[in-house]
Amino acid sequence: MIVLGVDPGSLATGYGLIEKKGEKLICLASGELTFRKDILFCERIHGIYRGMVELMKRFQPAEMAIEDVFFSKNAKSSLKLGHARGAALVAAVECGVRIFEYSPLEIKKAVVGFGGAGKVQVQSMVRCILSQEVSGGLDASDALAVAICHLNWTRYEKPREAMR
Amino acid sequence: MIVLGVDPGSLATGYGLIEKKGEKLICLASGELTFRKDILFCERIHGIYRGMVELMKRFQPAEMAIEDVFFSKNAKSSLKLGHARGAALVAAVECGVRIFEYSPLEIKKAVVGFGGAGKVQVQSMVRCILSQEVSGGLDASDALAVAICHLNWTRYEKPREAMR
Repeated sequence: MIVLGVDPGSLATGYGLIEKKGEKLICLASGELTFRKDILFCERIHGIYRGMVELMKRFQPAEMAIEDVFFSKNAKSSLKLGHARGAALVAAVECGVRIFEYSPLEIKKAVVGFGGAGKVQVQSMVRCILSQEVSGGLDASDALAVAICHLNWTRYEKPREAMR
Repeated sequence: MIVLGVDPGSLATGYGLIEKKGEKLICLASGELTFRKDILFCERIHGIYRGMVELMKRFQPAEMAIEDVFFSKNAKSSLKLGHARGAALVAAVECGVRIFEYSPLEIKKAVVGFGGAGKVQVQSMVRCILSQEVSGGLDASDALAVAICHLNWTRYEKPREAMR
């Protein structure tokens, strides 16, 4: 099964595709869709949608995992994040990819072991878990982290299904 | 020229299509895309995208007018609004429809004459300006209001072009 992890943002949207073969997790691709600030906001949001659709068509993930955010620093940044996240959700539903959401705490616990971990710690653990160098910056490793969280969650929550 | 006005929201997204023929404004359609709360959030956001794409394909508006929101009551409602707004923006860029944004103050001033107007006052003035009954509730009339604002703005800001 292939899972697409997404860390949405209007200037940089991280993505990571992980294939689970038995107990092994293989990173197929990871990176960031980045947009310059001088590009119109609506064009950047559309760029996230197009980028996500292209990744889903190319790698055919069965499921998408995304951080579940209920609040942010302030109303303005929440509004921007909402646009980016909305574009990713629209792309997934449009491509028939099932969506799974995890809280930041669940993601950090699944990957690093404790909820207070920083982005750099997450990146180190993601590299360690995948036993490979992964391309992209901190947003890409955050995206991979949510994909790993989803694959682990599935394993722990549905052990009998996962063992088949 | 046909303009699509949009008032996005994750439970109800108002829309209104207005055609300008000379000085006359004709409402072609208006209404609300409504979603039950028990429908998955991502499905509702995708429903806005699909609904907008269908309206754009059917009425072929050249331009879309939408409220420009930089803040909201709180971070959570801003996040939800961002998703809905993002879906509408993605649909417009996908359909090649140009996007124009106006502040709530600009919209109310253009339609009612003062910025403190409530939704019911906006609805009354929209009906008066269009000289016709318009279908849909308050979200639909808010959507028509932003379309009217855009058409008036174009007229006042570019008088020579508008007179051609």
